[in-house]
Amino acid sequence: MNFDEALEKLHEIDRECRYLDQTAAVLQWDQETYLPPQGVADRAEQLAFVRKLVHERFIAPETGRLLKELGSDSQNLRGDESLSPLEGDFCKVMRRRYDKAVKLPADFVSAAARAEGLSQAAWVQARRNNDFAAFLPHLNAMIDFARKKARYWGFGNGLLGDEYDGLLDIYEPGMTARNISALFGPLRDGLISLLKRIAARPQPDVSFLNREYDVAAQIRFNRVLMDRLGFDSSRGRLDVSAHPFTTSLGSDDIRITTRYYPANLLSGLFSVIHESGHALYEMGFPREIRGTCLAEGASMAVHESQSRFWENVAGRNRLFWDGLFPLLRDHFPGPLASVSVEDFYRAVNLVKPSYIRVEADEVSYSLHVILRFELEKQLFSGELEPEKLPETWRKLMKEFLGLEPETDAEGVLQDVHWSMGSFGYFPSYALGNLYGLQFWAKLSADLPQAEQAMGRGDFEEIHRWLRETIYRWGCRLDPPDLLQKVTGEKLSITPFLSYLEKKYTGLYGL
Amino acid sequence: MNFDEALEKLHEIDRECRYLDQTAAVLQWDQETYLPPQGVADRAEQLAFVRKLVHERFIAPETGRLLKELGSDSQNLRGDESLSPLEGDFCKVMRRRYDKAVKLPADFVSAAARAEGLSQAAWVQARRNNDFAAFLPHLNAMIDFARKKARYWGFGNGLLGDEYDGLLDIYEPGMTARNISALFGPLRDGLISLLKRIAARPQPDVSFLNREYDVAAQIRFNRVLMDRLGFDSSRGRLDVSAHPFTTSLGSDDIRITTRYYPANLLSGLFSVIHESGHALYEMGFPREIRGTCLAEGASMAVHESQSRFWENVAGRNRLFWDGLFPLLRDHFPGPLASVSVEDFYRAVNLVKPSYIRVEADEVSYSLHVILRFELEKQLFSGELEPEKLPETWRKLMKEFLGLEPETDAEGVLQDVHWSMGSFGYFPSYALGNLYGLQFWAKLSADLPQAEQAMGRGDFEEIHRWLRETIYRWGCRLDPPDLLQKVTGEKLSITPFLSYLEKKYTGLYGL
Repeated sequence: MNFDEALEKLHEIDRECRYLDQTAAVLQWDQETYLPPQGVADRAEQLAFVRKLVHERFIAPETGRLLKELGSDSQNLRGDESLSPLEGDFCKVMRRRYDKAVKLPADFVSAAARAEGLSQAAWVQARRNNDFAAFLPHLNAMIDFARKKARYWGFGNGLLGDEYDGLLDIYEPGMTARNISALFGPLRDGLISLLKRIAARPQPDVSFLNREYDVAAQIRFNRVLMDRLGFDSSRGRLDVSAHPFTTSLGSDDIRITTRYYPANLLSGLFSVIHESGHALYEMGFPREIRGTCLAEGASMAVHESQSRFWENVAGRNRLFWDGLFPLLRDHFPGPLASVSVEDFYRAVNLVKPSYIRVEADEVSYSLHVILRFELEKQLFSGELEPEKLPETWRKLMKEFLGLEPETDAEGVLQDVHWSMGSFGYFPSYALGNLYGLQFWAKLSADLPQAEQAMGRGDFEEIHRWLRETIYRWGCRLDPPDLLQKVTGEKLSITPFLSYLEKKYTGLYGL
Repeated sequence: MNFDEALEKLHEIDRECRYLDQTAAVLQWDQETYLPPQGVADRAEQLAFVRKLVHERFIAPETGRLLKELGSDSQNLRGDESLSPLEGDFCKVMRRRYDKAVKLPADFVSAAARAEGLSQAAWVQARRNNDFAAFLPHLNAMIDFARKKARYWGFGNGLLGDEYDGLLDIYEPGMTARNISALFGPLRDGLISLLKRIAARPQPDVSFLNREYDVAAQIRFNRVLMDRLGFDSSRGRLDVSAHPFTTSLGSDDIRITTRYYPANLLSGLFSVIHESGHALYEMGFPREIRGTCLAEGASMAVHESQSRFWENVAGRNRLFWDGLFPLLRDHFPGPLASVSVEDFYRAVNLVKPSYIRVEADEVSYSLHVILRFELEKQLFSGELEPEKLPETWRKLMKEFLGLEPETDAEGVLQDVHWSMGSFGYFPSYALGNLYGLQFWAKLSADLPQAEQAMGRGDFEEIHRWLRETIYRWGCRLDPPDLLQKVTGEKLSITPFLSYLEKKYTGLYGL
């Protein structure tokens, strides 16, 4: 086999694995949106089997052989033939994934997938019934699978780092609990201090937000909103699920979900803005990498930097609503009759600690995340027994946000992540805030008019900048390299804290 | 490997192929219901790849070896070990499918699946734009794939039968064009004669059917109706697609679709009754065969006997509407205000030849099918060029039903089947009418009160009879054997024609 044939063969493996990954994503999307209740058991088997197949296909000895022939990174040459930078990155990403995947036995992957399906279904029930005890056996199983996975990769034996570092590495390559703690410590202190200063000031009247907002009108407005944000509905959809998410079922099939409450306009609406931010990233990969393993976000945190940019920096900006509030009022002429854009702007920026992460304000949000990070660290160090999670959750909530949830449904059971075994994922949300504000600072410097343009409902300059500086890379650059290339900086909490300080000083007259 | 191990191994192959088949069904269901327009190309690749995998898994040499070890039918013994009747049927069905599948090259299967995906998408567009020419290249490709498939199986070489017999055999094992012609000839004559006698009589006033029927209320009524018919919504769903269908995505996940027109109450409603009939069969397989290859209908025609039984024998029965009409009127108090159950009964049994098969009355319906059978026969014998289909279609419509469609959308483009390469499928619909009426004659003899019970909305006796005499077998018995076991008879047009004669003599005073 010559060099070009080997490269084409590696692309074929990537494509086939991608078809199966996308197929698994369809099974999963359907599970979260439309699956009939009794379909859960078969679906778990189907998902487990498809995941087993993709794993087997990917770790076949052929993959390792091809990677060896092609060299593992963009610097490698073979004879006089060299890889283009693009193909070099392709081989680098394939190599990294192969090295991880090949260490997981097929039976383990398949058993984990099956257990995740059942665990998620159990979580849906447990949350509905506020019954942590019913979920605990599944949680224990998920922790056990996660520990084993980290150990298969060589973590937890004193060499590469602790088990939890192995899990963090899945979502944020190279990040460790120590690095994150170094950022989250001062971030927590800064946020708690800002929260206290805000709490001492008078609050705006936001009672209009809990009027009756017709769900059909919410759905209609969300479709218009997505369209304005640049979501291409010929390449995606919006549906309803218990927990909002974004998923790519194909290069031209990127789907988001939200949920609706008649007496809570903002929940469904801001989930749509958040998930649209993820979707714009996925829709924005350039043609040259579409349909390959490079057409993915640089990391979970960088993905979150996009969703949280649209949700907060754009979606909670006064200018954004100058452009869109008239349209919103057209959809809800009753409940918004006497509400001004200024009232609405203040309301969507209400800072008021509450139980639910995905509905938290911009200031307290990261504290929800830091809380989960602390719990995960303690769970995996063995300091915290899983059955003690509900009470430790309440203790930390009290410490960070000054309140205690009355039910586990509003506490430890609120998020889907642990039910899927996705430990180590949560920090991405707060790291995403940091990345997002560093990108925004650079974008504002490059394009001083971009923020004003929002006020005319015009996001074109922002889209172009994001496409040309971030989307274009897919996962070709690791997050620190991407950040360096775009901003010339290292990850920092300063832009994020300065942004909050300035914005909320204005809003609350601190 | 001992006997039990070999059997278990064969079951494992069946299970894994089933997971992949169900996965393909999820991809397909999503394609017909929710797929964004630009997602079509990737979906075709995903489906092709999954179908290739299931094909490869099934025809692996291991399957052939295991079948040989286990013997191919229930009469075979190996040493002192014997197969139970159930396991014997399992091996028989596996053997039959293996013998078919092993003759199709993997590349052929995969190319056909990919082409089908694109062809279906092209058909949706072509029907929308009334543009047969745009669909013709896809149709030619589908015919070509079908011919090749029949030839791989050994048809078309003068030994087993013609190519078209090979296609008929997929849906109705052992049926040939000659057998079907022998039934359809006199059936056609009988139906045309009955149609003429009806046409000479005055027609009921059915104008109320085209009043405005709120689509949301149609959806609500359909959900109640499905529930009354015994459709278990914890094991299935109802969605919307261009062409109504039923699909099993798992043993406990059986989905149906319909379509809605505000000015046509019956279209959506009778599709739901029809598809519910398919779904009840799929939901009714006993535990002992669920999750195995035996949990399928005996044939397409037997499947149609169930759907058309519920649609016509039950759903167009005066007693059925005695039970359900009050509920229907509750959902549409405006348009049905002055309509009596007798008016409604006469309206749903209006005999009036029209263009669209799925909306045809009980008398002309089979003529739509016979027309398609004639065209398929001529297409595959070479007598008819595909580009001549529209005009030949119009000619036969004139001959059979006395009318000519003005557009191809209402003619040759109306059905999805040919776009999927499903030639040989159509006869099943009319054969299903024959089976259905033979079953109903036996059911009525066994349970003389069952028809009366419908008037109280009580289908329990009918359900029990169907479960115990038909559903229980899955595909363990071939259709002629099932018919023999249940009724003691061979397939015949007499019960069907007698039923029509009696019913429409009453309705039209012939």
